[in-house]
Amino acid sequence: MKTDPFALRGTICSSGADCRLRVWEDAFLVCEDGRCAGVFEALPERFQGVPVEDCRGKLILPGLVDLHVHAPQYPFRGLGMDEELIAWLNRRAFPEERKYQNLDYARRAYEIFVEDLVRSPTTRACIFATIHTPATLLLMELLEASGLSALVGKVNMDRNAPVYLLEGEVREAVAQTRLWLEKSAQFEHIRPILTPRFVPSVSDALMAELGSLQREYGLPVQSHLSENLSEIEWVQELSPESNFYGEAYQRFGLFGGEGCPTVMAHCVHSPPAELERMAERGVFVAHCPASNTNLASGIAPVRRYLEAGVRVGLGTDVAGGHSLSLFRAVTDAVQCSKLRWRLTDQSLTPLSLEEAFWMATRGGGAFFGQVGSFEAGWSFDALVLNDAPERTTLTLTGRERLERALYLAEGCRLVSKYVEGRKLF
Amino acid sequence: MKTDPFALRGTICSSGADCRLRVWEDAFLVCEDGRCAGVFEALPERFQGVPVEDCRGKLILPGLVDLHVHAPQYPFRGLGMDEELIAWLNRRAFPEERKYQNLDYARRAYEIFVEDLVRSPTTRACIFATIHTPATLLLMELLEASGLSALVGKVNMDRNAPVYLLEGEVREAVAQTRLWLEKSAQFEHIRPILTPRFVPSVSDALMAELGSLQREYGLPVQSHLSENLSEIEWVQELSPESNFYGEAYQRFGLFGGEGCPTVMAHCVHSPPAELERMAERGVFVAHCPASNTNLASGIAPVRRYLEAGVRVGLGTDVAGGHSLSLFRAVTDAVQCSKLRWRLTDQSLTPLSLEEAFWMATRGGGAFFGQVGSFEAGWSFDALVLNDAPERTTLTLTGRERLERALYLAEGCRLVSKYVEGRKLF
Repeated sequence: MKTDPFALRGTICSSGADCRLRVWEDAFLVCEDGRCAGVFEALPERFQGVPVEDCRGKLILPGLVDLHVHAPQYPFRGLGMDEELIAWLNRRAFPEERKYQNLDYARRAYEIFVEDLVRSPTTRACIFATIHTPATLLLMELLEASGLSALVGKVNMDRNAPVYLLEGEVREAVAQTRLWLEKSAQFEHIRPILTPRFVPSVSDALMAELGSLQREYGLPVQSHLSENLSEIEWVQELSPESNFYGEAYQRFGLFGGEGCPTVMAHCVHSPPAELERMAERGVFVAHCPASNTNLASGIAPVRRYLEAGVRVGLGTDVAGGHSLSLFRAVTDAVQCSKLRWRLTDQSLTPLSLEEAFWMATRGGGAFFGQVGSFEAGWSFDALVLNDAPERTTLTLTGRERLERALYLAEGCRLVSKYVEGRKLF
Repeated sequence: MKTDPFALRGTICSSGADCRLRVWEDAFLVCEDGRCAGVFEALPERFQGVPVEDCRGKLILPGLVDLHVHAPQYPFRGLGMDEELIAWLNRRAFPEERKYQNLDYARRAYEIFVEDLVRSPTTRACIFATIHTPATLLLMELLEASGLSALVGKVNMDRNAPVYLLEGEVREAVAQTRLWLEKSAQFEHIRPILTPRFVPSVSDALMAELGSLQREYGLPVQSHLSENLSEIEWVQELSPESNFYGEAYQRFGLFGGEGCPTVMAHCVHSPPAELERMAERGVFVAHCPASNTNLASGIAPVRRYLEAGVRVGLGTDVAGGHSLSLFRAVTDAVQCSKLRWRLTDQSLTPLSLEEAFWMATRGGGAFFGQVGSFEAGWSFDALVLNDAPERTTLTLTGRERLERALYLAEGCRLVSKYVEGRKLF
């Protein structure tokens, strides 16, 4: 995208490749053709005279990346939090998702979701829709119009759910999925991602067809993995030939590797072999601490994943998670890691704020390419945050302001937001 | 307080003695002379014609009770969250508390705290100040003017802290404490509570004097108990004659029993004997899940406490806890109980939302008398909450609206607040 360069001036925070946080107390962030030209203490010669948005006194952060969120579940966030995964799916998630066969309902609900997503710290997201092709295309249309960049999946499921949420014959499911893929080509910033709901919901026959579609279209893949102990047992029964849950996707070519970028939500209880496979095949973990807490799934050993070289980002997992804010996901990740360390495994040190922030930006951003940091040449995805409390008695460093903004998410106002250089507001 | 009766009409939620939540979808809550006259489906004969505030479409809840909060730590909430208790005290809490020897600083900081507390869901609180008598009295004055009801403690500490936060000679500490107690008599709704910081900060000699003061004035007592494993070891060294931490208070008559209402914050690692003693002597636990998470102290086995008949309420423990909102404390308590259940002890079932809400209202309210419920004759402490999202596609029950309001604390607006029948705003 060819556009005139411009700059933001303020306190800039961005993560390095090593999770370390870099803070510039007063610097210029330059955008050129939708990419970062770099962060500069003073504007270089070649950018003299470009328009500068004065954000001094505000925080400038890379946009945050939500690797796992269910758009149709947004209406019932913060409800039904006293159940575990399978009961919760049957009592809360499925009945709500059913409503999206009605396009009027879908429009009303998705308009609210997209509007709130725009106002949230998220600039990129991997989004589950429902099985419904028209509603999924509508969601993509609304997202495209919003200026966000996202991967959106029409959900595939043909077993072990109420009949109203099953796609019927494999042939029909594949036809609908092809139709959705073809119509998705109209969008510029919103792309399709193949979305088998999870192993229990997808027959081997449909999973095999999805594997073929993946190879034919070169699609990315998203699903759920090793979230809940009962779920894992169930998958073992359904796929006895798999040594671990992840193999039940890999059997069909839907688990990372060359040409198959894959993100799996949760991985709370992944055994060492699964972990190793994920590292080998570059499968991303979408770590969703709020959801894993609300549904009492457990706490994912994120430190182990980082040490094993598994790629990790954060997800809100609305509505298993009740907040759409990735700020909250960052502090939830830190908090959960502390509890896991204290309660079960003192060999895995808690996550630092820097590490969790890295996961929410650069860690998850890698699923989208050069996203999640202000390195020169990377996508210009940026947030400007008015983090000043109305009254305070302290003077804070940039690092402290970031920490407080993340912990007191509700006390900060987003002033502007950019995705690939596009100003959303 | 003789005042004309009035009523609020709307969706009313209130806990029974058994933790069960009672919800009236459309009813009248009547206030008479600062007490609840009851909840009525229709206004009884004797209240016909009283002014009715129409809160239909809004939620009416009992005011929430914060059993543990450090007012002077409010400025640095959400900062320094990567440390454990003792390091955090030395690096964050003590240097900030030192500033309150300057009355100008104290005024600036306490004005912000009190203003934010008024706007929070809290109607009653047990508050730690600092060792400084003038600043503590100033805090009490500001609270009194706000209309809130609270117990406020000048902190006592004479060892194991930087010299700038020690009270010096025991004689001097006692003289200052007496001065503070005498001057506290001027307040109507704000009363003093004896506040030895915790065993490591208070010498036996001072603790003995505080025991005498407690008996002389019939004061309530607040302190910290069994929060962190290193702290507990330290107390064992400092007080080898005590069988458990709580006995190090009880030796001096500062641990519940007849005429000594006592609230102890945390109790994350209380052994069975301590627990039993607390049940016998009616010592309250202020359960502070956010703080126990942030400082990696652990998760208190609240279910066990409830089963053992120990009295339990919630505390925000600002600034170990980063949020002043008890809504957040309610959902944190539920979340932590789920993680404890999953990670360490499946014999202790997770807390339900109803139980956590009960702790934040009626459980902690009992420390103040008949507080925390809309039973007839109880104190009229009430919140009116505009919980309607701007746009939604769902129609919710009163129970669901309460759940969502608690989980999405930041999405709700307090419309009005009453304490003992006084309207704060």
